[in-house]
Amino acid sequence: MLSAKYSKNVNARSVIRDLFEYSKARAAEIGADNVFDFSIGNPSVPPPEQITTEAVRLLSEMEPTAVHGYPSAEGIPAVRQAIAADLNRRFGESYSGKNIFMTIGAAAAVTCCIRALTDYGTGDEIITFAPYFPEYNVYAASAGVRLNVIPAEIDSFQIDFDALDRTVSPKTRGILINSPNNPSGAVYSEATVKKLAEFLRAKEKEYGHSIYIISDEPYREIVFKGFSVPYVAKFYDNTLTCYSYSKALSIPGERIGYVAFTERCEDADILLKVLAGAARDMAYVGVPALYQMVAGLCCGETADLSVYQRNKDVLYRGLIDAGYFCVEPGGTFYAFPRSLEPDATAFCERAKRFELVLVPGDGFGCKGHFRIAFCQPEEKVARSLEKFRLLAESYAK
Amino acid sequence: MLSAKYSKNVNARSVIRDLFEYSKARAAEIGADNVFDFSIGNPSVPPPEQITTEAVRLLSEMEPTAVHGYPSAEGIPAVRQAIAADLNRRFGESYSGKNIFMTIGAAAAVTCCIRALTDYGTGDEIITFAPYFPEYNVYAASAGVRLNVIPAEIDSFQIDFDALDRTVSPKTRGILINSPNNPSGAVYSEATVKKLAEFLRAKEKEYGHSIYIISDEPYREIVFKGFSVPYVAKFYDNTLTCYSYSKALSIPGERIGYVAFTERCEDADILLKVLAGAARDMAYVGVPALYQMVAGLCCGETADLSVYQRNKDVLYRGLIDAGYFCVEPGGTFYAFPRSLEPDATAFCERAKRFELVLVPGDGFGCKGHFRIAFCQPEEKVARSLEKFRLLAESYAK
Repeated sequence: MLSAKYSKNVNARSVIRDLFEYSKARAAEIGADNVFDFSIGNPSVPPPEQITTEAVRLLSEMEPTAVHGYPSAEGIPAVRQAIAADLNRRFGESYSGKNIFMTIGAAAAVTCCIRALTDYGTGDEIITFAPYFPEYNVYAASAGVRLNVIPAEIDSFQIDFDALDRTVSPKTRGILINSPNNPSGAVYSEATVKKLAEFLRAKEKEYGHSIYIISDEPYREIVFKGFSVPYVAKFYDNTLTCYSYSKALSIPGERIGYVAFTERCEDADILLKVLAGAARDMAYVGVPALYQMVAGLCCGETADLSVYQRNKDVLYRGLIDAGYFCVEPGGTFYAFPRSLEPDATAFCERAKRFELVLVPGDGFGCKGHFRIAFCQPEEKVARSLEKFRLLAESYAK
Repeated sequence: MLSAKYSKNVNARSVIRDLFEYSKARAAEIGADNVFDFSIGNPSVPPPEQITTEAVRLLSEMEPTAVHGYPSAEGIPAVRQAIAADLNRRFGESYSGKNIFMTIGAAAAVTCCIRALTDYGTGDEIITFAPYFPEYNVYAASAGVRLNVIPAEIDSFQIDFDALDRTVSPKTRGILINSPNNPSGAVYSEATVKKLAEFLRAKEKEYGHSIYIISDEPYREIVFKGFSVPYVAKFYDNTLTCYSYSKALSIPGERIGYVAFTERCEDADILLKVLAGAARDMAYVGVPALYQMVAGLCCGETADLSVYQRNKDVLYRGLIDAGYFCVEPGGTFYAFPRSLEPDATAFCERAKRFELVLVPGDGFGCKGHFRIAFCQPEEKVARSLEKFRLLAESYAK
């Protein structure tokens, strides 16, 4: 006799999981080289060499009990200071260590922020924008909070402010954004961020209480030529910046992230303790020690992310040439074109005939689209163009 | 405007935190050598050498993308198999990898188990026994579950079965035990575990549904001569065994633990998915990759834990000789004697006059006692006996 909540879903199928199984089985049949699996968003580039050299150095120079002891719940002071200094250098900010709360990746950062802003079962709500990372639903539901999704503005993947205006309410405690975006690769322009900031400041005044932006930025460092990612906290004081080193340093398995907030933020004096309270509720005792230190030492570095630029260039051009509509990705390693029939699931099913493994957009709150995770070898992306072309032609017949 | 729940507690004092600050300040005044800080339960011994050699070997031999990639949510298959094999060797069990769910330490294991057994706000309850680890309150409350605490059986720190019988109800979904125990160091005898198993089997029959034991065993490997720790799952099929490598391998900062369940367990077919659902709700994406692999390679080892035996021998004998009543610790690095006045807080306050930093038992649900964390250098434990003697004499006057 187990939890009804968790027991009832044990036989639920996961689209991504099914695709993974399909892809593995198909690779066994025709060879992995001939299957174009674009379903999984795992970083494909190695971490910077410094990641390994610093880890080995710490292991050889420090006392093991000092390396592997309990770090304090909010993070190791020197690491928090290093991250603050790096953010100040990059963004002209003035963070200090006490503005940084270390977390077990960006997922933990986002879920701590949702809880820090809301109370279980009180009707508090968080707003986000489609297309969006589907785990946001899980984090909100488990915090006893409503997640209100604003439909996608599908011509640009910027923000539909009319829809936002119709949805925001005095129960809105936070606006959860993700730019550069998974799954669309879209980057909010400075104009979008400014307009959002002005809109929220007006609503804060109208409602007489703060509305925070939770800015989920794990892809911040993967930005393509011609694009730039506005640093949201520069434009809006009540911003909780959620970050992970999974993508920029290519160490997703080590689970190192943080929440940052400036001193301009309304609740700057208590936010660290409030975040710690939320983390404690979820038994996050602390962030893994060795790689927390390594991240502090390497936070000014990035992996060689140029393959994502080259893949994006080749893939985006190829898709447009083959007749797909696709908002140009400004960052990440995702593209999110329109499917060639309204039912994206049927489209992705047909794509398998051409050995393309793609994810329907429905799960990201945006029907009629599909996600391509192009964190794949360049040669494979190049070879896939022919497949995308044949897939498009199959619809032209 | 932040969460009311988390905002209201930001100025709450923490007894342990206050003691930590006191101890630091006092060390600055009279020198750290002269302060006997027994307040913090951090492992004091280095991890086995193999921990470092295996970490360095993996970093040099494996592709960095393979080392640091996302591990699957339930854990790396080879690690789970290694842990299963180690448990089988130690306890004559027949686990396989699919019976092991990797977690970010034992805290995460316990909180996943509480959630796996209960539903938020339905009146489901978990029973535990004083003295107990106070974070259990946090984990239960955040899962929307009532934690019912059975008062301590203070002459032995075994189980008061009459009190348990009065408390258990059809809403009881789990019994949370912790043997060897923090804070008492007590180990449940085989007789106690057998009687608990029989009691629960009868109640399962009476209520017509299962009642699980959540067995929180992070101190399982720290056992003193003359004691042995019965492996609870051998005695009761519906046992969820929660473990952490923090103590046995002295790597608390790396956050590696697991939940294990045998195939005899009633819900063995769905437990892994149910635990994964609970973990997903708390945004536990996965367990840190490198030290998950290292734990898998080193799970048959332990750090040199003999200092805890020597410290316990010296301290326990010294306390008894000085006239304290103390249940002999069978394991861990804690002792939990009776305070020499009923108000343990006043007692611990007086202990500061003798430079002893001790934790009142009240926070562990057991008034009139105090916790000594003897994970300290041997010479310091030896020198502390004089202080404990003088403290006792101050009451005799």
